[in-house]
Amino acid sequence: MITFYTYPGPNSRKAQIMLEESGEAYDTRKIDITKGEQFDPAFLAISPNNKIPAIVDHTPQGEVPVFETAAILTYLAEKSGRLLPAAGAKRFDVLAWLVWGTGSVGGTLPQLHHYADLPVPVPGTVERFTTEAVRLFKVLERRLQANEYICGEYSIADIPTFCSTAGWLQRVKQLSDGQLGDTPAIDRWLQAVAARPAVRRVG
Amino acid sequence: MITFYTYPGPNSRKAQIMLEESGEAYDTRKIDITKGEQFDPAFLAISPNNKIPAIVDHTPQGEVPVFETAAILTYLAEKSGRLLPAAGAKRFDVLAWLVWGTGSVGGTLPQLHHYADLPVPVPGTVERFTTEAVRLFKVLERRLQANEYICGEYSIADIPTFCSTAGWLQRVKQLSDGQLGDTPAIDRWLQAVAARPAVRRVG
Ligand SMILES: N[C@@H](CCC(=O)N[C@@H](CS)C(=O)NCC(=O)O)C(=O)O
Ligand SMILES: N[C@@H](CCC(=O)N[C@@H](CS)C(=O)NCC(=O)O)C(=O)O
Repeated sequence: MITFYTYPGPNSRKAQIMLEESGEAYDTRKIDITKGEQFDPAFLAISPNNKIPAIVDHTPQGEVPVFETAAILTYLAEKSGRLLPAAGAKRFDVLAWLVWGTGSVGGTLPQLHHYADLPVPVPGTVERFTTEAVRLFKVLERRLQANEYICGEYSIADIPTFCSTAGWLQRVKQLSDGQLGDTPAIDRWLQAVAARPAVRRVG
Repeated sequence: MITFYTYPGPNSRKAQIMLEESGEAYDTRKIDITKGEQFDPAFLAISPNNKIPAIVDHTPQGEVPVFETAAILTYLAEKSGRLLPAAGAKRFDVLAWLVWGTGSVGGTLPQLHHYADLPVPVPGTVERFTTEAVRLFKVLERRLQANEYICGEYSIADIPTFCSTAGWLQRVKQLSDGQLGDTPAIDRWLQAVAARPAVRRVG
């Protein structure tokens, strides 16, 4: 049984989709990050960077705590044998695109979120993070024009980027003032991932 | 034989330290990112996000291209059997701290770099990214007060955070105006990692 530490938001959704995809049993413990519960010593022992999502797997060999979305997805993939090849070039293609999704895409959009919604705009910031988001979505569009899913078959590489793209693509198009045009391959892929039973269960 | 695509800078240093630690043979191909060589179609086929570092391993089973520092370090660790446990709780502790280093630390400091060195300061930006850098270095200091290396024994989790911290700790202390005080555990760890033969060979 896995305990899933969570609070509603895009990062938790990434982890929960993989919990559903993996078929592992889990129960959910809410960490209210608006009340500072992420700084409780008991939670910091699990997630020392004071962030959700995190998991603890209660295994016969002992407790396995994992924080950082990319590590959680890798853990669940290796445990379940799903959505990550065990060896070979394809394995590292998936791992590269996984951390691209959590780190590069997942690091840029929260900055855009912060600056695009300020009551008093800060000069140049929305432009800076929009330009990077446009670059990233162009990399993704090019990739998905050549591949059905990011790494050919559906894998853990699709999950973080799916969550970020579903939430941000339209807004980035608006902010980009025509720099980011149509994205037919991304649109097709968003529909295909959204239709997966595991993704629908998470909602 | 591995081909290492690189240009001088902190991200390349992370990958090169692990090339040295792994004992794998490699040769170096410079990609001049100041001349746009990262956009050459031949390089994009290896590194579709147009960034260095990247590697291609020429194996008997075919070519294995890997981009993103976290994926490169994982590849070299799994290939060489060094600096990443093959299974168990320790493996995922290392993977979590690895992506914390490349994504969270490695995503914050370039923003600080950008904003701290602008000729005309942009209101609030240096403060925003300094506050986050201070938080991250406090997480690291707490961790290194309880562990000799980030995950107990030296591992791939140390390498990216070592490169970022070596380059940024003093500057963040200056910018933070006393928010980040002494860091005895980080200082001890910086010296220990810097003394490793592989790290000294990279320089
Ligand atoms: N790099 C982390 C990011 C996680 C993250 O940013 N979590 C946010 C909520 S979406 C959080 O816990 N914030 C609470 C805090 O920063 O104190 C990951 O990929 O898991
Ligand atoms: N997330 C990447 C970041 C790599 C990165 O930022 N590389 C920079 C040089 S330090 C680069 O290649 N820049 C060229 C460009 O952006 O066009 C990683 O961890 O490897």
